Amino acid sequence: MMIIDRLIANIDEKQCPIVVGLDPALELIPEFLCKQAENVYGNTLRGASEALYLFNSELLHTLCSVIPAVKLQMACYELYGKWGIDAFDRTVDLAKKLGLLVINDSKRNDIGNTASFYAKGHLGKVPLFDGHDDVDKADFLTINPYMGDDTIEPFVTECINYNKGLFILARTSNKSAGQYQQALVDGIPLYQKIARDIQQLSTNHLGIRGFSPFGAVVGATWPEEARQLRDDMPNVFILMPGYGAQGGTADQVTEAFNTDGYGAVVNSSRGIIFAYRLPDYQERFPYEEEFTQASFQAISSMREDLLRTLKQAGRLPKNW
Amino acid sequence: MMIIDRLIANIDEKQCPIVVGLDPALELIPEFLCKQAENVYGNTLRGASEALYLFNSELLHTLCSVIPAVKLQMACYELYGKWGIDAFDRTVDLAKKLGLLVINDSKRNDIGNTASFYAKGHLGKVPLFDGHDDVDKADFLTINPYMGDDTIEPFVTECINYNKGLFILARTSNKSAGQYQQALVDGIPLYQKIARDIQQLSTNHLGIRGFSPFGAVVGATWPEEARQLRDDMPNVFILMPGYGAQGGTADQVTEAFNTDGYGAVVNSSRGIIFAYRLPDYQERFPYEEEFTQASFQAISSMREDLLRTLKQAGRLPKNW
Repeated sequence: MMIIDRLIANIDEKQCPIVVGLDPALELIPEFLCKQAENVYGNTLRGASEALYLFNSELLHTLCSVIPAVKLQMACYELYGKWGIDAFDRTVDLAKKLGLLVINDSKRNDIGNTASFYAKGHLGKVPLFDGHDDVDKADFLTINPYMGDDTIEPFVTECINYNKGLFILARTSNKSAGQYQQALVDGIPLYQKIARDIQQLSTNHLGIRGFSPFGAVVGATWPEEARQLRDDMPNVFILMPGYGAQGGTADQVTEAFNTDGYGAVVNSSRGIIFAYRLPDYQERFPYEEEFTQASFQAISSMREDLLRTLKQAGRLPKNW
Repeated sequence: MMIIDRLIANIDEKQCPIVVGLDPALELIPEFLCKQAENVYGNTLRGASEALYLFNSELLHTLCSVIPAVKLQMACYELYGKWGIDAFDRTVDLAKKLGLLVINDSKRNDIGNTASFYAKGHLGKVPLFDGHDDVDKADFLTINPYMGDDTIEPFVTECINYNKGLFILARTSNKSAGQYQQALVDGIPLYQKIARDIQQLSTNHLGIRGFSPFGAVVGATWPEEARQLRDDMPNVFILMPGYGAQGGTADQVTEAFNTDGYGAVVNSSRGIIFAYRLPDYQERFPYEEEFTQASFQAISSMREDLLRTLKQAGRLPKNW
């Protein structure tokens, strides 16, 4: 089954079009996990990386029953060098073992020859002295398209070869997003041109649910643009960051969904994984050992909000 | 001394405005080094990474007397996961020990909160349970500006805090570069708008030689654009990729230099590090154990070409 169809199947099974962003920040991780990691590996890059992994592991075991996929923000791991990469890889493995799909959010980009190294490293097979390694990778990778088509092609190639997918930056969720993304090309804003190019790429690679494995990143913080892009990209699945901590609301994210309730997955990171630090949840779960329960409540509550809003907008999938 | 002034001082000392790109590809590395690495670590990701490091180490020891800096293409290392990162880090350490400046070419980019993780990981200090790690990093980092100002700021902050520098993508060297980079903003192409924004950022951070630590990437393959951007960015140092294997010639790269002969550094990767595989050099250095001598000849010959062309263009520094 094409990877995008597996993502949609997971969303259907959990009735939950939400991806949780595993973007751990050491200073926000519960003390008992930090102590546990520090006791084994000390106050080192390896110790810090182990704390990230322990945190992820607890979250994954609790949340895997209710979410279709996770998104790992590479920057949070790369910060800790090789040990951080090790924690990233172990988290990917565990998430996949628990039946989740995994998005590697690292926004890679480079000229063609170099892009093929990134593509092989994050989506494909890695050449050794003899043959290739057999390490399995994340299912989707985010990429930055600023350098143009010939820098995107190597990623597309590996996706086709190894049944992986992409989410290509179109309109990002940050405040300065428009500064360069609104530049005009062929009379339309650059982010829209990129979206249309992703749509064009997609038409030759459709899965059984009408979407290609080449998705787009569209920030929840720009609902009008999201509505326009949804129309421009009927065959493109949208990954929508910016919900919660960044200001996107359930009302805003509904714009990314088709009238049949499909076509998008909303990401929330800090609002879910660090829910135990929020006053509301601190009252209900006073012990930091209960942090995954706070996250479970936070994702349940986000799901309720989102499904209610989708229903009001007439965009809830029929069989849910 | 501000990092950009150290780069210019190194260029002056070697009379060589060339950066060598350490972009190793396993299948192009001499067999004797691959065997050496495989004997110790086997046909594994770690073995492959060791081969990259051995290759870099030999090149660095031979070339450090004639070049001011090296540029490491992260994709070539990241391909091999945590062991590749280890080879990257060890190469950075060795290059610095040998007196070279180091450019980390990883084109990172993300929204502000996440960009600060990349910035700390590649330019600053990494938070541990208690305090920060003291690992020294590369001197410069390349970044992709597509997401706008608030995604660039965290990198600028770490540069100011830790005396590091950036090279921000403006006009890249690949064929599709214009596809999105020529979109119009305020009536000028996006790459030019980005260049002017880098110039504006630079005016408040000038070193003693009149340049800021916030440079721009401008491909050698677009000489007319390079001339325009040189004029638009009097205080911005240019990193110019695309020489050699990508088609850029000495004539073309002179456009990036000011009339006083400063303001740019030209990168060449495959044409230098894999020179031993080119027919010309294979005749003179028939044994692969002599590969660094081929590279030494290649960089000497590139330097001669470049200095001759700069001289013809009236752009050779006065005291060289």
